[in-house]
Amino acid sequence: MGSGFGLLFRVTTFGESHGGGLGAVVEGCPPGVCLDLAEIQTDLDRRRPGQSALVSARKEPDQVEILSGVFEGQTLGSPIGLLVRNTDADPSAYRPFKDTFRPSHADFTTEIKYGVRNWQGGGRASARETVARVAAGSIARQVLRQLAGVEIHAWVSSVGDIRAEVDSDTVTRDAVESNPMRCPDAAVASEMEALVRAVRSEGDTIGGTVEAVVHGAPVGWGDPVFDKLEADLAKAVMSLPASKGFEIGSGFAGTAMRGSSHNDIFVPDDEAGGVRTTTNHSGGVQGGISNGMPITMRIAFKPVATIFQEQETVDSGGGATTIKPRGRHDPCVVPRAVPMVEAMVALVLCDHFLRHRGQTGT
Amino acid sequence: MGSGFGLLFRVTTFGESHGGGLGAVVEGCPPGVCLDLAEIQTDLDRRRPGQSALVSARKEPDQVEILSGVFEGQTLGSPIGLLVRNTDADPSAYRPFKDTFRPSHADFTTEIKYGVRNWQGGGRASARETVARVAAGSIARQVLRQLAGVEIHAWVSSVGDIRAEVDSDTVTRDAVESNPMRCPDAAVASEMEALVRAVRSEGDTIGGTVEAVVHGAPVGWGDPVFDKLEADLAKAVMSLPASKGFEIGSGFAGTAMRGSSHNDIFVPDDEAGGVRTTTNHSGGVQGGISNGMPITMRIAFKPVATIFQEQETVDSGGGATTIKPRGRHDPCVVPRAVPMVEAMVALVLCDHFLRHRGQTGT
Amino acid sequence: MGSGFGLLFRVTTFGESHGGGLGAVVEGCPPGVCLDLAEIQTDLDRRRPGQSALVSARKEPDQVEILSGVFEGQTLGSPIGLLVRNTDADPSAYRPFKDTFRPSHADFTTEIKYGVRNWQGGGRASARETVARVAAGSIARQVLRQLAGVEIHAWVSSVGDIRAEVDSDTVTRDAVESNPMRCPDAAVASEMEALVRAVRSEGDTIGGTVEAVVHGAPVGWGDPVFDKLEADLAKAVMSLPASKGFEIGSGFAGTAMRGSSHNDIFVPDDEAGGVRTTTNHSGGVQGGISNGMPITMRIAFKPVATIFQEQETVDSGGGATTIKPRGRHDPCVVPRAVPMVEAMVALVLCDHFLRHRGQTGT
Amino acid sequence: MGSGFGLLFRVTTFGESHGGGLGAVVEGCPPGVCLDLAEIQTDLDRRRPGQSALVSARKEPDQVEILSGVFEGQTLGSPIGLLVRNTDADPSAYRPFKDTFRPSHADFTTEIKYGVRNWQGGGRASARETVARVAAGSIARQVLRQLAGVEIHAWVSSVGDIRAEVDSDTVTRDAVESNPMRCPDAAVASEMEALVRAVRSEGDTIGGTVEAVVHGAPVGWGDPVFDKLEADLAKAVMSLPASKGFEIGSGFAGTAMRGSSHNDIFVPDDEAGGVRTTTNHSGGVQGGISNGMPITMRIAFKPVATIFQEQETVDSGGGATTIKPRGRHDPCVVPRAVPMVEAMVALVLCDHFLRHRGQTGT
Repeated sequence: MGSGFGLLFRVTTFGESHGGGLGAVVEGCPPGVCLDLAEIQTDLDRRRPGQSALVSARKEPDQVEILSGVFEGQTLGSPIGLLVRNTDADPSAYRPFKDTFRPSHADFTTEIKYGVRNWQGGGRASARETVARVAAGSIARQVLRQLAGVEIHAWVSSVGDIRAEVDSDTVTRDAVESNPMRCPDAAVASEMEALVRAVRSEGDTIGGTVEAVVHGAPVGWGDPVFDKLEADLAKAVMSLPASKGFEIGSGFAGTAMRGSSHNDIFVPDDEAGGVRTTTNHSGGVQGGISNGMPITMRIAFKPVATIFQEQETVDSGGGATTIKPRGRHDPCVVPRAVPMVEAMVALVLCDHFLRHRGQTGT
Repeated sequence: MGSGFGLLFRVTTFGESHGGGLGAVVEGCPPGVCLDLAEIQTDLDRRRPGQSALVSARKEPDQVEILSGVFEGQTLGSPIGLLVRNTDADPSAYRPFKDTFRPSHADFTTEIKYGVRNWQGGGRASARETVARVAAGSIARQVLRQLAGVEIHAWVSSVGDIRAEVDSDTVTRDAVESNPMRCPDAAVASEMEALVRAVRSEGDTIGGTVEAVVHGAPVGWGDPVFDKLEADLAKAVMSLPASKGFEIGSGFAGTAMRGSSHNDIFVPDDEAGGVRTTTNHSGGVQGGISNGMPITMRIAFKPVATIFQEQETVDSGGGATTIKPRGRHDPCVVPRAVPMVEAMVALVLCDHFLRHRGQTGT
Repeated sequence: MGSGFGLLFRVTTFGESHGGGLGAVVEGCPPGVCLDLAEIQTDLDRRRPGQSALVSARKEPDQVEILSGVFEGQTLGSPIGLLVRNTDADPSAYRPFKDTFRPSHADFTTEIKYGVRNWQGGGRASARETVARVAAGSIARQVLRQLAGVEIHAWVSSVGDIRAEVDSDTVTRDAVESNPMRCPDAAVASEMEALVRAVRSEGDTIGGTVEAVVHGAPVGWGDPVFDKLEADLAKAVMSLPASKGFEIGSGFAGTAMRGSSHNDIFVPDDEAGGVRTTTNHSGGVQGGISNGMPITMRIAFKPVATIFQEQETVDSGGGATTIKPRGRHDPCVVPRAVPMVEAMVALVLCDHFLRHRGQTGT
Repeated sequence: MGSGFGLLFRVTTFGESHGGGLGAVVEGCPPGVCLDLAEIQTDLDRRRPGQSALVSARKEPDQVEILSGVFEGQTLGSPIGLLVRNTDADPSAYRPFKDTFRPSHADFTTEIKYGVRNWQGGGRASARETVARVAAGSIARQVLRQLAGVEIHAWVSSVGDIRAEVDSDTVTRDAVESNPMRCPDAAVASEMEALVRAVRSEGDTIGGTVEAVVHGAPVGWGDPVFDKLEADLAKAVMSLPASKGFEIGSGFAGTAMRGSSHNDIFVPDDEAGGVRTTTNHSGGVQGGISNGMPITMRIAFKPVATIFQEQETVDSGGGATTIKPRGRHDPCVVPRAVPMVEAMVALVLCDHFLRHRGQTGT
């Protein structure tokens, strides 16, 4: 279970890092949307390892094939089948972990939960699983843009202790893509790169944060109670590998504020559909429903668990042993996490767009 | 939509702050569980306003009635209907907000989304909605305890800038309940109380954080990919009113760590089912699946939006106006958020307990 | 599980025949619909036992209370909580069945499935459970009428071997309600009544069929593949107590036809949105999607299992014994099944109305 | 929407008759089940056109590829991705229907619902869509056999007016497969074949019925209220192309019976788990829950809509026209419907097997 996401715009994924391939079924897509396959491929390329020295050197061309649901460039309203073949899988690198649990990986929990495990890679817990999400999310993004004028941007806002201050109102895709760090502040990006190189040279890894913003969402998306927009966003990004935290709007910093400074004052604004707020501590969501302001969030990613240092651990018999991984892994996941975050945010918004339209007709 | 939560152990809630009452239907409860109604009532009493000078003075006796699903003290396996009547509702306090949107409340988004609104209270966005969650969560908690030996504790870990360091391995319900702040560190609790009183005297409010821990969860609960345990926990607590952030394990602090210090080393341990980790930066979850260690999380709550100061805002016609709320509201929500967090965590775990049992038979 | 129905317009029910009461939560109702509570009560009264000598003499006033989701006569878009108290419950009639399984009832399967059972009535398997469905379905019906111009009618089309031929194009509620048999053909209705009286006098029961028609559904409701409109209708009515069969359009009789006579020929028709068919063997659904013609179906109901004759059976220890029920039960369920069928059909259509609107915007 | 089926054992399908291929994702499969790929292929071959002169001459080799979820012959518990390529697609046969709606097909409803349509075949409404169901159902069947000892058989019970009487207690796969009609009564099968050949020679088609039986289901599968076992079975098979009716147990014939003959008397039986019934009018289900007796059902299939005769119809502009299809289609769908029915029944039972285990632990 747990491989499906969304109620009306619903994606179901499959695939392990090693085996025939990964894919997704996207159900509920509105018909008549012009789908740009090149854009899907671009998003997959942004997710791919081997883009730069900062990320894993694995070669995963990740060519996506659309199996159904699209005809003469348009969505049919039927399920869109997506397939990406596994081509660069190298099980030999994983043979040492066949009977030895890598620390802070899912080897141990997977083995105990299911009693059986594809040890030739991370299986379902591999970050490679996100290929399917990114492809599906790219479709959601195109739907949102064409039918609702919504745009989503994410970027790297910190690596280790190095933080960038980025204006979420004006950030652009070009700025994000202007360096391999995917941090729109070029100077800070250079510092981050230097840190990642240093960490890598020690066979170590480091964490970081990604910020994201949604522009153009109208007032009214999201539901009260359990399916609040921020709740569904939190689930979406906390389901990404290595994520450890989520904030919307003021987040944890907001806990130290007084209500008198935290409250977002409404003011008349003819351009913004009549009303906007002067601040945005709410992060664009009030009572679980979008309020027309930019939706802003921040996600924490832990340091990658695969380090190239010897570590103590246990084997499948429960005995103490040591392990020293080799292979091709990222010293820092956040540059590649950027398109993953965008994809998950797009899936949530597209679903709530359709849910709102279903219930209210608007 | 959005009033249902869970797949196998599923709760569906209803009710506004003003109207006939609030309630829930709990589906999928295992049969033959001995249900202690007094414990449900105790959890509701912990959630209730008017418990101390630190929280709202509203009187909501919140007597729960079990309408179905229980016979001679045992669950039947059929849906458990729960009802709590509204008794102390006072619509007159809300009349000034009939056509004026309170800042950082859901009045505005609700009105635009639905085109109609019960202005006699916060409606579905009222914190009173959590009555239904707490009652349902209390049932989940009893199921978890009886069938799986699982216990859940939450407590206040910060108010404003005042933080408590609490050992999640040894925290007890008694310690949490030993003061109205629900902070097990008595000295820090006193400081927090002083701060809350000061803030209240200014007609202002302040935020804080709640921490929670799950003891006794076996290895294997949770699913890879979208329904990772931490993803479902994040959604669960981020759906609570006023929550702005979620962390599991090392959370945001973990982003500044190296993999070599962040990784949780496995060691043999006969008592802990064969294996445990020496640290718990993972927060008890690896690859979305519980690893047998305590599950630890932290949730951010913003300052309550209702302050007793005059604020600028707009009316339903979009014109500028001012508002100065009166009535009975909390200066700080976190003491009452403690049972809400426990309830939501219990709902997630109980659902994954049954899901795991369904798929694997164990 | 299994107490929820629908995706966007979703009803979740609770309640046993004996206990605090029965109820439902209706999620996803469009906001701004004017809800006529008297109409809900009328539908409940049509379902109620004790309406005539043809049905059970139990007195169930079945007053429905709306607990939430409606304000000043309008739906709010939030969940509508519905409650009907149990008032005429008489457990003493069931004491003989405490340890003895009534033939063709759910006593045996319930006891083995759950290991515990509320023997003071039929529990969740009681026909009284349909109170919640009828109340929820009545809301769906009002939504369909106000927002989509759709009307639903059901009637008794056979009792035992006595069959009525009713023109589904012209049938009216008044004609259905003109006799206690709910058969619009008055002459046949009289024959049916005579048969039911005869059967009852022998302490026996008899089966029958109900037909239903939907007028006004536009082209386009329903989904291909699993959630075909006829599939969801089949599930809906086959979930009613005592139902044993379902047909749409030509049904089983159509299996003996040639394609050349069964095919429904399209012809231009300006009034009918441009196109209609000259026959309607499809029953208003093609490829799982409504085609603008009346949706016609027929449902089989077995004879009521409670007969007032001595029967062999087994007790809870598995030993042979005999049983002779007493109490208040229907000799023929179909007159009361009419509002149940209407309710279930309304729930299916209302859900697909919203689903279609969500995906396509129309 | 509508391409997913099941709650715990859940299949999601994709694919049109023309395009890259068809497939399914099977979620929730228990881990450690030994999967025989040859058996899946055998079921697909039974569904395939071109098996005999009685069915369509189209060549669809329908080789299934397992993309994920299986490792060294065992299920992993992760989603099983299934892909069958389209190879013999011939869009030219469909060019005449590009702007002309075939009577009693889904062309018209699809075009109006979505505003766009893949006219190069039946699209999502093609019977070819059932490839994905049969592959997924074959997995469900192996799970049921290995983990629960359950077997499912279906067969052709009538074609036109020719009916076979088959003993559902003793029917075998060999008997069903002993002739291309899939009717275990060889003499009746010959008559059916003669009728189908005669109908085909006229360019016409004819309907029929399929019966199915489940052996070995324990007491306790299925849920009260909406997800009764018979309701889910009805939905499952009524979602198959061309199905028009469903019966369980006594079905429509039962409506003419008295309760005193219809009731299934319980008697002690040590072999059958303590209790069995002397008759089985209930069809193995009481109160929505399996009672340990064989589960018996019958499904009506209309005559195939594609006939090779000229018919009146309308074009996409609403004008009157005529159409005379050509191509490769079945004169009678029931022989190929047999594996489809078995697949859908297996999906329902496997889901309820896991649901029951999840809620009750047994």
